[in-house]
Amino acid sequence: MNDFRSRLGAPMRTVEKALKLLDFFTDKVTEIGLSDLARLSGIDKATVLRMLQDMAESGFVEQNPENKRWRLGAGILRLARLREAAQPVTRVLTPILERLAGETGETAHASLLSGRDLANIGVIEPARANRVYIEPGLALPLHATASGLAFTAFARPEQRDRVLGRKLSAITGTTPVTRDSLAAMLARTAERGFAVADQTYEAEVYGLAVPLFGPDGFACGALAVATPASRVSEPHERGILAALAPAAAEATRGLGGRVPAHHRITY
Amino acid sequence: MNDFRSRLGAPMRTVEKALKLLDFFTDKVTEIGLSDLARLSGIDKATVLRMLQDMAESGFVEQNPENKRWRLGAGILRLARLREAAQPVTRVLTPILERLAGETGETAHASLLSGRDLANIGVIEPARANRVYIEPGLALPLHATASGLAFTAFARPEQRDRVLGRKLSAITGTTPVTRDSLAAMLARTAERGFAVADQTYEAEVYGLAVPLFGPDGFACGALAVATPASRVSEPHERGILAALAPAAAEATRGLGGRVPAHHRITY
Repeated sequence: MNDFRSRLGAPMRTVEKALKLLDFFTDKVTEIGLSDLARLSGIDKATVLRMLQDMAESGFVEQNPENKRWRLGAGILRLARLREAAQPVTRVLTPILERLAGETGETAHASLLSGRDLANIGVIEPARANRVYIEPGLALPLHATASGLAFTAFARPEQRDRVLGRKLSAITGTTPVTRDSLAAMLARTAERGFAVADQTYEAEVYGLAVPLFGPDGFACGALAVATPASRVSEPHERGILAALAPAAAEATRGLGGRVPAHHRITY
Repeated sequence: MNDFRSRLGAPMRTVEKALKLLDFFTDKVTEIGLSDLARLSGIDKATVLRMLQDMAESGFVEQNPENKRWRLGAGILRLARLREAAQPVTRVLTPILERLAGETGETAHASLLSGRDLANIGVIEPARANRVYIEPGLALPLHATASGLAFTAFARPEQRDRVLGRKLSAITGTTPVTRDSLAAMLARTAERGFAVADQTYEAEVYGLAVPLFGPDGFACGALAVATPASRVSEPHERGILAALAPAAAEATRGLGGRVPAHHRITY
């Protein structure tokens, strides 16, 4: 459970706490009652209600008039349109993801840094039955996913250090939970130019990811391909990387970033 | 300028204030510096910075690393995906808007209640040069737009009263600014089943709107067509309503709502 303390160990401030309430909504949990939100967050009901009412004023949440439960509000769609007008991420990434899923026959997804995790902002699944499903809007932990490793290995040094300084939670049996094991994975990622996550986030899922770079030449996100672990082989992996590397370079350019000269994919 | 007081006249609470900072971003103003945000909001710089940092933790805002100015963050895209997975608004509305713009030759747009205004959540422009441009993500004031009037006239009584109780700002020379003039417009809208806004929000723009209804039979938003005022004629208006009325009924059903039995469009 979320301990509702910020990264610096200090108690969260009100605004941060209120926005964190939104993290309890997922594609499976689309509505939550007040009591449940209070229980999940460990904040008293009166305070949660006040925060919800404040967020409702800006349309971030709304109450289902039928059952009085809370859900994400339409104001989020409005802001997403504005963000997209300012930086047309989805429009740039969708055709790239579609091609990548087509070429690899696997699930292609893109993410950008958002607060302390990567926000998954686009997924295209391949047209085959046995495929990896990625929850829309999933937050990808930096230490436990191929996307997170690809991002962190090429992030600004201070961001990288921040991730290394965190308490690392075990998500599966192979998630790196010590600073040393994570540092080793990041070094290997930096060396090869891409990241591998062998079931570190979800059993039976194998991920390959290449960083997306911002205009400053540091990573701002990642482009990834996720495959059932049972399908992984050296030729398949080579094929995925052959499609992934140019797709990531194209996505970086499309987002207004630049791939630094030293970045090279070596399998 | 925003006076940063909530609808009840009481000073806003921290969370509400922080989220209101996001309203200063538009499709033209995509990045804002700290000092400008402090000036625009009338909140001191240290407080604004703290709020921005708190919102950045959840990815609602981010700092452009190049110029240190603040902009909307990728976390919003993640939440928008979740909201869309829970209630697939965009997917339902886009084909309806496309058909409506095609049939009328005018700009079609949809909005949903979000906080104190309607959030514009979809626009399709027609393929002709002289057309109405609607800013993506625009917040539509309830008293000054056809969408707002269509919504308010069919909203829950307490919502309607709330709008009537507000201080009404003049946006153009024909915006209703007294309780009586707005009440008269709402009565006429309720009677005819659709709303007309003749340049009440923007000079030279004429809007027609029909409410979208939620599952409770009260309005949750509006579907609208905006045309240059110079193009308005009775036959054109009839043609627009003939396309708009069934489109709104279809959109209502697609969003899981229901058109109440008493709702009738009479031109």
